Amino acid sequence: MEKIYKRNKLTMSQVMLPNQANVAGNVHGGEIMKLMDSTAGAVGIKYSRSNVVTARVDELEFHSPIFVGAMITCTGTIAYVGKTSMEVVVTVDVEDLESDAPPKRALSAYFTMVALDKMGKPKRLPELISETEEEERLFQEGKKRHEFYKTKKR
Amino acid sequence: MEKIYKRNKLTMSQVMLPNQANVAGNVHGGEIMKLMDSTAGAVGIKYSRSNVVTARVDELEFHSPIFVGAMITCTGTIAYVGKTSMEVVVTVDVEDLESDAPPKRALSAYFTMVALDKMGKPKRLPELISETEEEERLFQEGKKRHEFYKTKKR
Amino acid sequence: MEKIYKRNKLTMSQVMLPNQANVAGNVHGGEIMKLMDSTAGAVGIKYSRSNVVTARVDELEFHSPIFVGAMITCTGTIAYVGKTSMEVVVTVDVEDLESDAPPKRALSAYFTMVALDKMGKPKRLPELISETEEEERLFQEGKKRHEFYKTKKR
Amino acid sequence: MEKIYKRNKLTMSQVMLPNQANVAGNVHGGEIMKLMDSTAGAVGIKYSRSNVVTARVDELEFHSPIFVGAMITCTGTIAYVGKTSMEVVVTVDVEDLESDAPPKRALSAYFTMVALDKMGKPKRLPELISETEEEERLFQEGKKRHEFYKTKKR
Amino acid sequence: MEKIYKRNKLTMSQVMLPNQANVAGNVHGGEIMKLMDSTAGAVGIKYSRSNVVTARVDELEFHSPIFVGAMITCTGTIAYVGKTSMEVVVTVDVEDLESDAPPKRALSAYFTMVALDKMGKPKRLPELISETEEEERLFQEGKKRHEFYKTKKR
Amino acid sequence: MEKIYKRNKLTMSQVMLPNQANVAGNVHGGEIMKLMDSTAGAVGIKYSRSNVVTARVDELEFHSPIFVGAMITCTGTIAYVGKTSMEVVVTVDVEDLESDAPPKRALSAYFTMVALDKMGKPKRLPELISETEEEERLFQEGKKRHEFYKTKKR
Repeated sequence: MEKIYKRNKLTMSQVMLPNQANVAGNVHGGEIMKLMDSTAGAVGIKYSRSNVVTARVDELEFHSPIFVGAMITCTGTIAYVGKTSMEVVVTVDVEDLESDAPPKRALSAYFTMVALDKMGKPKRLPELISETEEEERLFQEGKKRHEFYKTKKR
Repeated sequence: MEKIYKRNKLTMSQVMLPNQANVAGNVHGGEIMKLMDSTAGAVGIKYSRSNVVTARVDELEFHSPIFVGAMITCTGTIAYVGKTSMEVVVTVDVEDLESDAPPKRALSAYFTMVALDKMGKPKRLPELISETEEEERLFQEGKKRHEFYKTKKR
Repeated sequence: MEKIYKRNKLTMSQVMLPNQANVAGNVHGGEIMKLMDSTAGAVGIKYSRSNVVTARVDELEFHSPIFVGAMITCTGTIAYVGKTSMEVVVTVDVEDLESDAPPKRALSAYFTMVALDKMGKPKRLPELISETEEEERLFQEGKKRHEFYKTKKR
Repeated sequence: MEKIYKRNKLTMSQVMLPNQANVAGNVHGGEIMKLMDSTAGAVGIKYSRSNVVTARVDELEFHSPIFVGAMITCTGTIAYVGKTSMEVVVTVDVEDLESDAPPKRALSAYFTMVALDKMGKPKRLPELISETEEEERLFQEGKKRHEFYKTKKR
Repeated sequence: MEKIYKRNKLTMSQVMLPNQANVAGNVHGGEIMKLMDSTAGAVGIKYSRSNVVTARVDELEFHSPIFVGAMITCTGTIAYVGKTSMEVVVTVDVEDLESDAPPKRALSAYFTMVALDKMGKPKRLPELISETEEEERLFQEGKKRHEFYKTKKR
Repeated sequence: MEKIYKRNKLTMSQVMLPNQANVAGNVHGGEIMKLMDSTAGAVGIKYSRSNVVTARVDELEFHSPIFVGAMITCTGTIAYVGKTSMEVVVTVDVEDLESDAPPKRALSAYFTMVALDKMGKPKRLPELISETEEEERLFQEGKKRHEFYKTKKR
């Protein structure tokens, strides 16, 4: 089985426009979730070189509101890889381009993605090899969450 | 403090259009999450008679894919109400209008919403009174989740 | 020929967002018409179990303006069924979720829908059987309108 | 009172894109209605030099389907002007740019628009003066329809 | 080879809506560029009776800002036709429908379009015959620009 | 006057969705131009810490088509800064996430942006200091283009 030694990571970013606003005039939370889902999907495709679908989202937490005009950066990092599913840690950082303030964490969540083969069946994923202690810690935490979520499955 | 005896519930529904598709041609998961967030927000506003924001989303689980052309029905039910935050159980059912098959559960999730006053500060919520055993069970489960999520807060 | 004893009815609802506004800042009338057309189409598909197209819209009347943030509920009721076309009464009710005011009728219209078979040819529709006096009255009124519109056809 | 001697007319046109498709892959009827409403609104604003709202739509008739990629031309002509409301005849012509076929009438409808002053109250409209027999005929027909619709008002 | 004696020209127009605004609340420059590209494409398709792609855009110049609510008219005129590519002069005029001011030039640009056959290969274009001195001048200027751009190609 | 020693650069990226397709099913060139304009605007805001508007776009060149599903990365680099206007080099790279092929240059263009103060008047920009030979070369080329464009101004 093919091995991928580099833990994959991918970044997507956009400036938030007025047509993404909610009724209160801030950015619609659902627009952000959509971007997070796209990021999780993109890094999952990149890692597996195949189509992927979202299976679960857990612990999606809003740390601060996002305003129209902000530049947001959405990062997806593959933390854990099982046989056919992988956990992607997705974070969203927000930057006010007109100010000197550094980007600020606005959201984070765990996405579980499943790779599909051409027939739409779950597909075996390449093993994820930790190269640093940090990567190994991330992997072990992701594995623990993965096992916990299985007990939650309805 | 005002009491609301009826546990609030609200339904939103739409037919999924081609402009909501993902790259694979099915409905973009992020579009569904956006609709779920809107539903949780709407029932939260209805219950609190004030603006609300999404604080967390947990255990969002995709049970089956959603196709363009499907009619989806998104239901938000307030399960638990604390001082300033409330838990909304959001479910998504999907129906193929051209077939005789009954609607099918496609997603479910727990949204934690916070009510805000005119100054944008968290606002005291009216107490939720269970009138049936079923409502009381839902309330107790929501309370347990609420306490569990607090331990997860990053 | 198959008979359907229940007069079909279907409801679609959404919260109106800022990206649906017109130049004056209220909800674009065209957005509402689009939702009404979707509702008429959906109930037509549900009744005929086939693809449908809109043939006519008559007496579309705006009773009150719709504001961004309002929850709108669009109801399609099949009033009359001819050989290949059916009349759908579409109503739009609007609710301010932050207030205690009950929903209010904002629009109504009559949509004439034609069912199409797989070749795109008009398809025979199942007969609509009135079960109550109210249904029969609605049927007779729809029939009268149907005959009147035929005289208007350009 | 100011007089406008020229019967106002205004044209809007676009190429239909895939994100305007319905489930069957043709252009969503609601998208076309939205464009018709925009055209009626624009010519109403141009005639009255003030904000306008749609009051009614009548006899909206689909003469032929519209395909993605077609160029559509939407024309609004003010037929009749009363004290505060005016009737706009809206037509939609469709052209396949890759063929030599001439544009073809795809839809037509009558829109009743009301002009509003800065306070949102109905505003007196400038009188419409027919300069040709054709304009006079259009005016008399519009007037007849206007009086007929009043009897239909729910 | 077929000859087309009429220099083709095509106009597209729309009223700018709030969902086309940028962060500052004016119309997003990118929305206008998108409409210009659509216009260049449409006139290119009309001239060549085939699919076209954009190869270059040059000297796109914003002469004045565009506000939400403005009616914009985008005109594409084929200035020069080479073997497989053609130059389209695209202009955008903007009109405030509530005022008596005449339309005003807001943007202009030169689009180079290439016609493609069914296999996606560049396709020979019909010759453009100037019938007036004005057309001949436009052709010669377009030819000069075409040759200049070739030297710029990266 | 404040000096900024770092030449600013900013990256925006997205996966292209079906609702961004043109009639031929590829990504609409206008969608890409819109993203390029957003990127030029964002880096201009970041450099000037103020609102900016697009003044010109030159030599926008499509090197290869972009397909739905591709990940595109749009990079804006400030090449030259004059008194109130700056030139941004914008490039678009495209990556097929399912393949091992490296990203490929799909477009490039020069955007001239003007910074505006709170009154909407052009605002003096901080001087751009080249720190490397490469930066100096970019600056000199940008300056030459800037002077050339001035002669083109209509």
